[in-house]
Amino acid sequence: MGIYTLKAESVLKSGFAVENTAGKFTIIADEPASMRGTDTGMNPVEMLLCALGACQCITARFLARSQRFDLQDYRVALEGDLDPAGFMKGAEGVCPGFQQVRVTVYIKANATAEEIDRFVDLVQKRCPVGDTLCHGVPVVKRHIVEE
Amino acid sequence: MGIYTLKAESVLKSGFAVENTAGKFTIIADEPASMRGTDTGMNPVEMLLCALGACQCITARFLARSQRFDLQDYRVALEGDLDPAGFMKGAEGVCPGFQQVRVTVYIKANATAEEIDRFVDLVQKRCPVGDTLCHGVPVVKRHIVEE
Repeated sequence: MGIYTLKAESVLKSGFAVENTAGKFTIIADEPASMRGTDTGMNPVEMLLCALGACQCITARFLARSQRFDLQDYRVALEGDLDPAGFMKGAEGVCPGFQQVRVTVYIKANATAEEIDRFVDLVQKRCPVGDTLCHGVPVVKRHIVEE
Repeated sequence: MGIYTLKAESVLKSGFAVENTAGKFTIIADEPASMRGTDTGMNPVEMLLCALGACQCITARFLARSQRFDLQDYRVALEGDLDPAGFMKGAEGVCPGFQQVRVTVYIKANATAEEIDRFVDLVQKRCPVGDTLCHGVPVVKRHIVEE
């Protein structure tokens, strides 16, 4: 099948607002007023949780179809823990990113509890965003263009 | 400052469409028609790239303010490589997630090339989503609720 390259672009607008585009779709990120933002969108770490939840849901639909698993409903609640001292202060020994992400799966399916367990485990294993988060990925700075 | 817990929820709708909510904001993920989706939003791996780009832009604004760096424009182009065989076929030895992510930074600032380089490096280091992706994060399945 070969390697497939996905693309996106993020443009810093006024204050903390960011316009993020992939293909024909745009989503806005921002910070709340309490962080001196203009509160026009969720923040990027919430967006990361949404990417994970969305990917698990789509993986569930995809695997249900290919495995003839009778999936009726799938919903994911996500939590991620951050220590703001890492980002805001660059505190020594405190990572700026998530320290842990927790996923609770709400599922309705015409299957036994054991089959459901196996299905949810497979969803977590095959989910591209989940795999990226669990194992990490090299983020390479290609170059800097001064404009 | 203590640990701060971010939350989000993803709900699988018709086909591959997913409604993702954090606080009062909702963003839609979907797959294009070529993937048998209904093309109502970007896909989750594109959303992950957007979360990274947004986080770099917001981190740039934040650091520019706190360091009195005269930042005028900041824009990030992102690419991520996937092998669909990992996700679609569960192919042995092929990870379902990104194999590499590349970031190109377009910046306008009243600063020397060296100061700009240092600033962009600091943005990459302090960015919470970038840190999470570079180092990975434990994704813990809390429990499964059958409905």
